[in-house]
Order: sequence, then structure tokens, then C-alpha cells
Amino acid sequence: MRSLPSRVMRPFCLSPSLLTHSSRHSFHSIPGSVSPSSRASLGFCTNLLIRRTPLLISNCGGGVTANPSSQVRWNRTKKAAVAEPDEKLTALRELFSKPGIGVDAYIIPSQDAHQSEFIAECYMRRAYISGFTGSAGTAVITKEKAALWTDGRYFLQAEKQLNYNWVLMRAGNPGVPTTSEWLNDVLPPGAKVGIDPFLFSFDAAEELKQAIAAKNHKLVYLYSLNLVDEIWKETRPKPPNKSIRVHDLKYAGMDASSKLSFLRSELLGAGSSAIVISMLDEIAWILNLRGGDVPHSPVTYAYLVVEIDGAKLFVDDSKVTPEVLNHLKEAGVELRPYDAILSEIESLAAKGAELWLDTSSVNAAIANTYKSACDRRLQSRATKTGRKGDTSNGSHDQSCGPSGVYRPSPISLAKAVKNKAELEGMQHSHLRKLIGVDVADKLFEFRSNQAGFVDTSFDTISGSGANGAIIHYKPEPESCSIVDQKKLFLLDSGAQYVDGTTDITRTVHFGEPTAREKECFTRVLQGHIAVDQAVFPENTPGFVLDAFARSSLWKIGLDYRHGTGHGVGAALNVHEGPQSISYRYGNLTSLQKGMIVSNEPGYYEDHAFGIRIENLLYVKEVDTPNRYGGIEYLGFEKLTFVPIQVSPLLDGSARQWLWNNTRPVAKQ
Amino acid sequence: MRSLPSRVMRPFCLSPSLLTHSSRHSFHSIPGSVSPSSRASLGFCTNLLIRRTPLLISNCGGGVTANPSSQVRWNRTKKAAVAEPDEKLTALRELFSKPGIGVDAYIIPSQDAHQSEFIAECYMRRAYISGFTGSAGTAVITKEKAALWTDGRYFLQAEKQLNYNWVLMRAGNPGVPTTSEWLNDVLPPGAKVGIDPFLFSFDAAEELKQAIAAKNHKLVYLYSLNLVDEIWKETRPKPPNKSIRVHDLKYAGMDASSKLSFLRSELLGAGSSAIVISMLDEIAWILNLRGGDVPHSPVTYAYLVVEIDGAKLFVDDSKVTPEVLNHLKEAGVELRPYDAILSEIESLAAKGAELWLDTSSVNAAIANTYKSACDRRLQSRATKTGRKGDTSNGSHDQSCGPSGVYRPSPISLAKAVKNKAELEGMQHSHLRKLIGVDVADKLFEFRSNQAGFVDTSFDTISGSGANGAIIHYKPEPESCSIVDQKKLFLLDSGAQYVDGTTDITRTVHFGEPTAREKECFTRVLQGHIAVDQAVFPENTPGFVLDAFARSSLWKIGLDYRHGTGHGVGAALNVHEGPQSISYRYGNLTSLQKGMIVSNEPGYYEDHAFGIRIENLLYVKEVDTPNRYGGIEYLGFEKLTFVPIQVSPLLDGSARQWLWNNTRPVAKQ
Repeated sequence: MRSLPSRVMRPFCLSPSLLTHSSRHSFHSIPGSVSPSSRASLGFCTNLLIRRTPLLISNCGGGVTANPSSQVRWNRTKKAAVAEPDEKLTALRELFSKPGIGVDAYIIPSQDAHQSEFIAECYMRRAYISGFTGSAGTAVITKEKAALWTDGRYFLQAEKQLNYNWVLMRAGNPGVPTTSEWLNDVLPPGAKVGIDPFLFSFDAAEELKQAIAAKNHKLVYLYSLNLVDEIWKETRPKPPNKSIRVHDLKYAGMDASSKLSFLRSELLGAGSSAIVISMLDEIAWILNLRGGDVPHSPVTYAYLVVEIDGAKLFVDDSKVTPEVLNHLKEAGVELRPYDAILSEIESLAAKGAELWLDTSSVNAAIANTYKSACDRRLQSRATKTGRKGDTSNGSHDQSCGPSGVYRPSPISLAKAVKNKAELEGMQHSHLRKLIGVDVADKLFEFRSNQAGFVDTSFDTISGSGANGAIIHYKPEPESCSIVDQKKLFLLDSGAQYVDGTTDITRTVHFGEPTAREKECFTRVLQGHIAVDQAVFPENTPGFVLDAFARSSLWKIGLDYRHGTGHGVGAALNVHEGPQSISYRYGNLTSLQKGMIVSNEPGYYEDHAFGIRIENLLYVKEVDTPNRYGGIEYLGFEKLTFVPIQVSPLLDGSARQWLWNNTRPVAKQ
Repeated sequence: MRSLPSRVMRPFCLSPSLLTHSSRHSFHSIPGSVSPSSRASLGFCTNLLIRRTPLLISNCGGGVTANPSSQVRWNRTKKAAVAEPDEKLTALRELFSKPGIGVDAYIIPSQDAHQSEFIAECYMRRAYISGFTGSAGTAVITKEKAALWTDGRYFLQAEKQLNYNWVLMRAGNPGVPTTSEWLNDVLPPGAKVGIDPFLFSFDAAEELKQAIAAKNHKLVYLYSLNLVDEIWKETRPKPPNKSIRVHDLKYAGMDASSKLSFLRSELLGAGSSAIVISMLDEIAWILNLRGGDVPHSPVTYAYLVVEIDGAKLFVDDSKVTPEVLNHLKEAGVELRPYDAILSEIESLAAKGAELWLDTSSVNAAIANTYKSACDRRLQSRATKTGRKGDTSNGSHDQSCGPSGVYRPSPISLAKAVKNKAELEGMQHSHLRKLIGVDVADKLFEFRSNQAGFVDTSFDTISGSGANGAIIHYKPEPESCSIVDQKKLFLLDSGAQYVDGTTDITRTVHFGEPTAREKECFTRVLQGHIAVDQAVFPENTPGFVLDAFARSSLWKIGLDYRHGTGHGVGAALNVHEGPQSISYRYGNLTSLQKGMIVSNEPGYYEDHAFGIRIENLLYVKEVDTPNRYGGIEYLGFEKLTFVPIQVSPLLDGSARQWLWNNTRPVAKQ
């Protein structure tokens, strides 16, 4: 299944931020080009396409306007509404001039404070303020204007959901600026642009700051309040408070104390004395805890601070059961309120802690609080000692106080390399009897009755015929079509079990497919098999295998606009990094023994059909007759055991391979 | 054939300089690993392996010593010589303290002033001073010590050729430092290290400067004289003075004036008013000239300065025939003495020219002369205007005077994309009847009798049995073996013709190969065919295809330690960039229509046999039935037409493919 959380994607994406896209170059290589630049804006990034799809300043007519087609729609369908102002926008703008706020514009992204792929309703501020409920979008509101950016998957939906007060910015269409380009265009020089620093990673906020500095705009961090929450008031859903559960050691394979010891050795090695972890799946993994705060991902909202001699979990204690409390005590982890994270950062800086921060995931509120505390500390020391405080240099020697260690999280890779117990859990969760093909609801019903079922691992993608060509198609009662026996049917579904996470796609036909459908299906399958059977030396980055999945399609001039494989968590997020099998050549993470990846080449013919064949695999050593260079040669073992419909589409060796590899398995 | 000139390699190599290698990391991934780091130190880089092979400080016994095996050899074979000092070293060291010199050490690299792959004898200073004649090596001489760095291909040869005054540094062996690490180890802090700035690219010199600054050593540029030349005196060969010839328009396809216009448009686009071109093949290409100053590459020693309104060729006019003089006049190119280049740079800076410099190829003498002239100009203006001269920032606004444009040469890519006439010439040069297999000399004799033959394009690699496993094996009368009917025979040869350049490798057996030889040959051939038949979308970097060539070998745990394909010039250098098919993922240059690449997977079994199958291909558009994304899909057309020996090694579809693709062709 397609999308990846922004943090996971960040290493693959040319620009870490939706706000500061360089334009022309990569635009020209879209669509369909495989240049790293344009490709980085496609594939698993689709749920974040707006972050990476290049935009151009409009040359036509000057200024920025929604394109005619949608204008027409609005005039036709919303004549009545033309007079109506938007109460939410009015209320929000009234806050702009309030004391302690004082901004000329406010940016409302989709994110929560943890760069999560799936977020709780109470954090869906962009959907509340704009009415647009798609998964990807950014709202920017000035005193006069309101604009919403989203990508091609959501143009139609956004046109329907936005009222006339909003301008729709079609990311990826010519003449559409980035949010920062637009702000530089519509605001008078030297304006103040407000953001909630919890909702931007430090890197993204820095990039935004740079971009709007071109017009001398200042980026204003509003720590104390989120403007949308201010007007949302009592109608705002309460923060989730699902009880946390302990992830059984028989599934985790390693206890929390041992994982914390590993982390501490990493800290010592990096000359760091503490780390702040904000990615929810990293917290769940290292503490062997699972939660239910968001759909599809078994995580709980929290921050974790680990020091050499202790650890603190910042979480709403109403979610902490006595069992979890004991579990945390044993691991030497104390509890703190979720909202106490910033004051903890202050005191860490005050006592000179060298804080390890992954600025691609840690939010700007945390990183800036630490950095400015360090600088203040430095200044005061400097004045005391008469030394001139030098903050120009990222790292000062200890005598001048802490400066922080800015590196990718050490947990990401450790979590990606699964241990024996995790792999066994993943295998068992895949061996539960899954009725081959059915529509989303029925599937949920089947799964719900299975032992250990927790949730779906994402919204089931169930598309018949042309709907199958819509990557991420989610059937809606009013628009979905009934499964047509004369069309290809694509089903991409997955589940969260107590012991593992599944993600599988099959494409089937209940009648006689066309010759075109057969050829495309066969070439997609050839790509799938090429990856499944690949052998490669250790230290090979995933992108080296990506072309194996495409070469058969390339021969006839076909391709697909998404990556071939993403990492999968063990009873955790269905999308995780750092590894991937993708054309995003920037990601040099090698495929390592124990890593799990999906293998899901596809082909999508607009308005006709969609094909995707997806298994989950894990990386294992292959017992090759030679070991040239004295190194290990690696390959894959399948986790997924669901037959692939190949007769009558296929024959010969491929069919034989499939038969050998998809024999029925005993019900667990 | 393997190696690439350093400039061509630079983009692929982790460190642009042999002098400043970071060590441990990539050492651990050798041998045989395919991690980008270790791989970058192998493959086409082999003739520069010393530049990229990581070295470690010796832990054993402390300090740096040649390893025992060679010590033994010397004690045994050179007892008599133990007393003898080395006259050349003595003479060189006497110069150290002369007025205007004053250095504590002197570095003598292999390069000429143009980063050429093949250089003229008079520039083989490292070979003269050390006695070591291998293609790759760096000599470093202090007042007490003399050390020579070379790579694994030359350890034995260097042990034989170096006398006891020299310490052999086996690049790639554990415990061996880089040249700069060694200098920091053996010199007292604050020492002066001399170099000839013409023999280092600007980037390489800067990296060296940084590395030795760790011990406060200063890098001293000796512009006015080369210390080796000083002691070489009359025995030094004269600079080459082979007449230059005009490269016929029917082969070049585009006249020099048009090429210069293209270059000038590039300059204008980059805000530059002039460019210095120092790569000899770039000068030959843009002026449609060919020379005979160095073996194998039809180039002449020269510099070219192109301004918006004129151009100057800095060359020994004894090489300029009346025809060439006319040709240059027509193109608006004036002549200047080769040695006048630096004074020209001075005057360009003096008149405020924004000079475009490719610092990866332009030598430090030129780049530093320009930069310091700009700074002086800036200072004087600053003092005049009372402004503080700010040279900290690479680019000043125009009012402060020129600062230069530092980018890769715009000629590199233009030269790599061949036009119709160039491709025709390449095709004709490949269609000349080539007797399939013979030893190097005989081959030369055959070729010499062919119309349009100019030279070999590199030293023929002709290896039987175990010698075939030595990449770059060059048969020597005393050591070469006779072709053995019971062993695989590898022949890698190429020629320079007036209309094109060839490079081809075949591996044959005159008897019955072993099962092992058959399997390895078949898998190498499968890789060769996979690349030959590949179809890929436009904007695909060459490295995407590299794995196609290896996957069949990987399946049984085999691999080869060189790239799969390099660029080839049209009647020019047999190795050129910027494109390649390689695991050097850093090179994002896409394969573009008209580019020529070699396709040469191989496998080398130490002490047993070597296999390589090499054709030259050019990139062309493929007429695919679909064009997904509205882009072009590309593939290859063969230039090489020499049968591949497949019977009895091979049967089935591969054999059929070979038959179809290697039918005899009519003699031209």
C-alpha cells in the first residue's frame, strides 16, 4: 500500500518541506520521468505529494488563481453562498491582531507534533478550518486570502469541499506557487508569518524561514496556543486516551531495558548525554508498548527522553494501566505529563545536557527551546568569564556549554532490523487464514474475527476497473462501483495483529481479461518475481533493485509512479524507514538481514484498470556457492502466502514459480 | 578497457585527491563489497586506485615501514647497494633550501598539467625521480625520507624498481597512511610542503592544504620551477611537438565556430565572460583539432581561453601547420605561447573578466592566479572606496570586481552527446575488418595496415589463463606466458582511427573450457546481454543499469570489481565522462541519446582465469508501443561487430541472440 509517513519519506524526498520548493527543473521531468528529482516527488511520497511536487509561479494573467474549471464549478454550485463569509476564517483572522500573537498570516499543515502518518481527530486542524478532509494538504490564511495546497489525488475532492472563500492550489500544475512563494507574493515585505512550532519539524521550519526571508518576512513561533484550537473550542474532539498495552516479550524478542542500554551506548558513542524521541513508533518499539491513539498504527501520543542514568515518558497518565506502570518501572522509566516536555528540555539544557536531536523529525518547538536555552547559557557564561560568546559555530567546546548532537535517530535502523521473535510474529500474522478476495467491509469482518486482530494497518484500497487505476482509491458509498466481473479488481489491504503487521495487494479478474490486461499483469508479475528472486551483495542500497521490478514494463514503454517497496514495522507502522526499494537514489540505506520490505510493482492505466501485486518479504542471507569478496550475499524470504491469480493469464516458468511459491498453507 | 582519466573519474570517486583519504570506513568495506564507498575505490578508478584506496596508520611497530616481504627482497637483492645514496634524491634535497624555494618536503604526482590519462614522457617526473614506471603512483620526498604510494596492481613492479632509499607505501593495505597523514606524521609541525601547482587540480590542492594544516604545515606553490625538471636537465625528453591536424568536418559534424557559439551562450547564461579549458580532449573537440603529443589519445598539449568576443589557443606554434592556422583563423582563434597562460589569466582578472573555472580539472596554478588577482583587485578598490574588502564570501557583487564562476565544464556533456557524423565515424571505425583474436603485437601490425589507423587507444591487454585475471595485465617479454590452448584467453584492445575510437574485449578458449569457466562465461554473457537489451526511460542515470549486468553473477555469489561501462570519445579519448554505467551512485548523469558507453561485465578468478565481454554501444530512442508519461524510452545500438565465442560454451536463446547479433559484416 502506497504512502509513507513524512519522516520516513524525508530522506528520499528532494526537499524536506512542502514550503520551499524549487520549481522548474523537476516540473519538466514530470510526468512519468524517472529522474531522481521528479521521481522523488512521486511513489510512496504520494500522501505527501504536496511536499515534493514542484510548483511554478503563474505566468498567465499574473497573480495566483484557481483554474477556470473549478471556478466554473463554484459559480454554478455555490452562487447562493457567494455572499456568505466564512465564520471560521473570520474568527481566525480576528486572532491575528490579538496581544502576544500579532501575525499577518498563519500556516496550518496536516501534521501532528510527531510527524505521524495517521493522526488523531483532535489534531486534524487543517481539515477543520478548511473543510477539506484529504490526507495531504496545507492551509495558508492571510488577512485577505485563504489558500489550500493539495496534490492531484485530491483536486476533485477539494473542489467539492472548499467554499468560495478558499483558493485551491493544485500542487504539480503549472503556474502554481509553493506556499512560501505565494506568501512572498501576496504579503507586503516584512510581514509576520505565524506557525505552531509543534507542527513543523525543525528542518522544515528552518527551510520555511529561509524562503520567506527573501521578502524580509519573519517566521513567528506561537508556542503557547494554536489559533485553530482557539476557535475550535468545545466542538474540538478530546485528545485520544486509549489505554496503553505492553507488547509481549515473546513478540518483541528483546526487553525494554536491553533496548535502552543499546540506546545509551549509542549516546555515549556520539558524545551525547540525552536524547528526545518524538516519533511514536520509535517510542512504542524501544519501550515495548503499544497504543490505540490513532487509526491503523498501534501507537500512543508521547515523548520519550532518555538520559544515561534515567528515562522519562511524557504521556497522559490516564492511558497508563497498572501493568504498564510496572513495566515502565522495571525499565527505569518515570512518567511525566505530555505537556511537560518543553520545561524538561529547558532543564536539560540548564544542566548542560548534550541533547541528541533528529531535526528531521523532532518538532521546531523542542529543538528551538533547546538551542535558545543553550545560547542563553552560553551568553551568561561568556559575560561572566568575559569571553565573547560565539554561537556562530554549531559546536562549542564543553567549557562553553552544550550545543547538541544533530543526527538521525539511532532507533530508526535498530527498529528496522527485526529479531527472530519479531520475524516469527510477522510470519504468524501472515499465516492467519485470509479469504483471498473480498471487498473492504467484508474483509474487515473476516479479520475482526481472527485471533489477535487489532485494526486494519491502513484504509483498504478496493478498486474495480477504472477505480483500480486511482492509487489510494477508497470506496465511498456514493461514488464506488460494484465489483464488475468483466473488470480487473485490485485489493490492497492489511491488518494489525498483536504479533505482526500485514500489507498485501492482489489483482484478480472474475471473467476473461483482455489481451492488454494480460500483458500488463504479466509484466508486473515478472517485475515482482525479479525482485522476489534477487540476490545481491551486502551493503547494497534498496534502489539498486528497483529497476529489476520495472525493466519488463520499460521494454514496452510502461512504468509506474511509485516506489517498489517500503519498510514495514513489526506489529507497528505499516510504513517505516529507513530502507526502501525505490528510484529515490538519495536513500543509500542498504538492505540488511532482518529488514522487512514490501515488493509491490504495479501498472495503472487511467480510466481503465489498475494492477498491483504486493508481498511482504524479509531480507536473509542466501547460501550462494561462492562468496566473492568474502562477504555475504543476501536475498528475500516471503512473509505473504496468498495465491496470485495466474491462470489463465500466465503459463510457463513464471506460472510454475508461482505454483511453487503460493501453495495453500495450513490454517493457524 | 578499464581505467578512466582522473578528471573523468573525479565525480565518481569519494575523494577527489590521493592525498587526503579518510581511512577506516571504506577500508572495512574492501574487499569485494559493493557499498558505494568501497566500490568507488575500484573499477574504472583502478588506474587511480591510489587516489581512492583508503589507507590506515600503522599500528604495528609504530611509524611507517615497507612491509617485511619487500624488505627481505631488498636485503637479498640489493645488499651491494646499501651504501650507495641516491644521487637524484640528494640533488633534489639540495634544492629544498635554495632561495625562493625553502621547503621541507616535495610531492611528485603522476599527473601532467591537464589531468590527462596518458601523458608525454617529459612529464613523467615521478617515474624519473623514483625509477618506478607504473601508471599510478605518488612520490613524496622529505629531507630524510622518500616514499612512493601505488596500488595493488603495481606492488611487485614497485618492489623491483625502487631502490632501498625508497619506502614503498602499499595503498589499500592496513597500516598504510595517506600521503598527507604520512607528512603530518614525519614532519615537525609548521613545516613547508612544496608542490608544482600545475600538477594538481585546484580541488586536489585545496584538499591537501586542509589535510596538512592539521599539523600547521603550509602548502608552498612553486610556480616558477619544477624541482624534478631542475635535476633532470638535458637528459629530460623534449616536450612533444607532433603536428596538429584538422579533424575533418565530415567526421566532426559541427564546425568549430558553431561549437564556440554554443560555448559562448553557455557563458552568457552563467553570467561568465570567459572560460579557461585545460582538458586536452575538450580543446580538441571544440576546435575540431587532433594531435599526437601523447600515446593513445589524439590530443595536443594546449590551453584554450574563450571569451565572448574572442578566443586564444595557448600552444607551441611549431605544432601549428598552415592548414591548422587557417582553420583557427576561420574560427576566430588567435595563437599564444603555451607558457603565456598565467599572464593571460592575470590580464583577464585585471580587466574584470568573470572566469568560468572547472576546479576539478583546472590546475591550481591557473585557479589560484585568478583568485588572488581578483582579491588584489578587490582590495585596491576597497581601499579606494574606503569599503572593507570582503573576500570571505565566494561571490561578491559586480561592483566589487570579478569573483569567478566555479562549475563543471560545459563542454564535457556536449562532447559526450555525439552527433550524426560522429556516430557514423564511430560505426565505420568499428566495421574495419578486425582479425578476431591475436596477441598484442600482431594486432598492432594488422591494425597499422588499416586505412585511417592512427594509434592504439590504450595498451592492449592480452592475457592467457591466470594473466587474464589481472585487470590491466600488460604482457612483458620476460614475464608473459604463451597463449595456452587449455586456458581462457582475454583480449582487450582498441584503436584510434581518423573517424573514430574503438574499445573491445573478447574472451575465447581454443580447446575445451572447464565447467567452471563455462558457467562464469555464461553468467558474464547474460549480464552483457541484459545491458545490451535494456530499455529505460529518459533521465535514467547509468548506475540504474549496472545491476542488470551483475544480477546473474550475484545469484551464485560472484561479482567483479570494476564498473560496467564508461563513456568513449569520437576519435578522441577512449575514456571520457560524464556518463558511466557503474555502481558509483554519486554520478547522476543520465544516459542521453547519442552518448557512447562500453558494456563490459567481467569475472576474474585469481590465479586461474579472467573473463570480460565488451562492446561499445550508443544510446538511441526505442520505438516502444507505449510512452507512459509522454516521455522517450531509450535503449542501445551496437557499434561493435566482432563474434563472441559461444559455441560450445552456450546454447539456447542466448546463443541465438549472439548469432543474430554477431553475423560477419562486409569489409569496408
